[in-house]
Amino acid sequence: MKLFDSHRAPNPRRVRWVMAEKGITDIEVVQVDLLAGEHRTPEYRAKVGVPHVPALELDDGTCISESVAICRYLESIYPEPNLFGVDAREQAIVEMWTRRCEFYLANPVMLTVRFTHPALAVLEATPQPQVADYNRVAAERFMKTLDRHLDGREFMALDRFTIADIVAVVGLDFARLIKYRPPAELENLNRWLDTCRARPAASAGV
Amino acid sequence: MKLFDSHRAPNPRRVRWVMAEKGITDIEVVQVDLLAGEHRTPEYRAKVGVPHVPALELDDGTCISESVAICRYLESIYPEPNLFGVDAREQAIVEMWTRRCEFYLANPVMLTVRFTHPALAVLEATPQPQVADYNRVAAERFMKTLDRHLDGREFMALDRFTIADIVAVVGLDFARLIKYRPPAELENLNRWLDTCRARPAASAGV
Repeated sequence: MKLFDSHRAPNPRRVRWVMAEKGITDIEVVQVDLLAGEHRTPEYRAKVGVPHVPALELDDGTCISESVAICRYLESIYPEPNLFGVDAREQAIVEMWTRRCEFYLANPVMLTVRFTHPALAVLEATPQPQVADYNRVAAERFMKTLDRHLDGREFMALDRFTIADIVAVVGLDFARLIKYRPPAELENLNRWLDTCRARPAASAGV
Repeated sequence: MKLFDSHRAPNPRRVRWVMAEKGITDIEVVQVDLLAGEHRTPEYRAKVGVPHVPALELDDGTCISESVAICRYLESIYPEPNLFGVDAREQAIVEMWTRRCEFYLANPVMLTVRFTHPALAVLEATPQPQVADYNRVAAERFMKTLDRHLDGREFMALDRFTIADIVAVVGLDFARLIKYRPPAELENLNRWLDTCRARPAASAGV
């Protein structure tokens, strides 16, 4: 297998983090230079189908894009430690929290960064400061929900670390580019964030 | 089990469609009146955690929100016909196409509707016609990718109908509210759409 990776983008970090938690070292990692447009070449698009990283090329040539789909595939091949739940109920809880953390936290945080950071905002067809504000407000509204949820809980989905935590932390860590961190009064959220950031695998390829 | 459903919103239809494909009739379905704010009551929020439909209450009281998480849970309890892939490779392909259809087609189509339809646009804190345009353009750009992908293929992800098709069709069908349909020149996409809409389960609870 071969992983098409980019250290500049947040989504590939989800896959690197999963690989580090599982101790996966036998997948070839190829860096794709986004600023040089390597993800937009005809060769890359013919292989992956879309101009996105990360992508995982399987041994039969099938290419899987979408970071969470890649991570779930890795879970099936390298099942330990479990990151997606061990039975149907756990898997449903983990997927629910992964999607909540992705849609209502990580995505608006990443849009805030894209429309705020000078080097990224210039890449937008129509830079709009109000898009950054709208997304920051939406993310902070959901942070309050998460802060209440994390009262008395160590991790997002289960009583152990899962892919839901990875998706949430990677989104928040991307906001370090604009020196953003969650409001200090969200003590449970900040405690959870410190716990996750302290994991050895958190720094994999950062 | 008990499903909290709403006929007014598109995401619950994904669950109803999965239930119809699988012939599931032994789950109690409770209608939540969104216009009356029943999803915002303290009772509903205490139960589900977020003011969203659909939600599936399991027999142990656990509530699962997020339509795709609910559908995957139903797949585990009612495995036939298979809608999520039978092995790790198929499951990765199905999840990749489900996410692509959700993020780059259904979501922008639904935002286009929300910011265009008079009865829905008034619900937005800051109605912006350019948000509708931006999302329609983004959705139509990805429709071209899908049209090429569907050249010689009957369905989105595998050589049979899957959850990826459901997510894509439900997004496009929501746009009927504003009398939108994909550009006629996208012949493969329109053929696929007609094929999916002709399934008996497509009309479940529509």
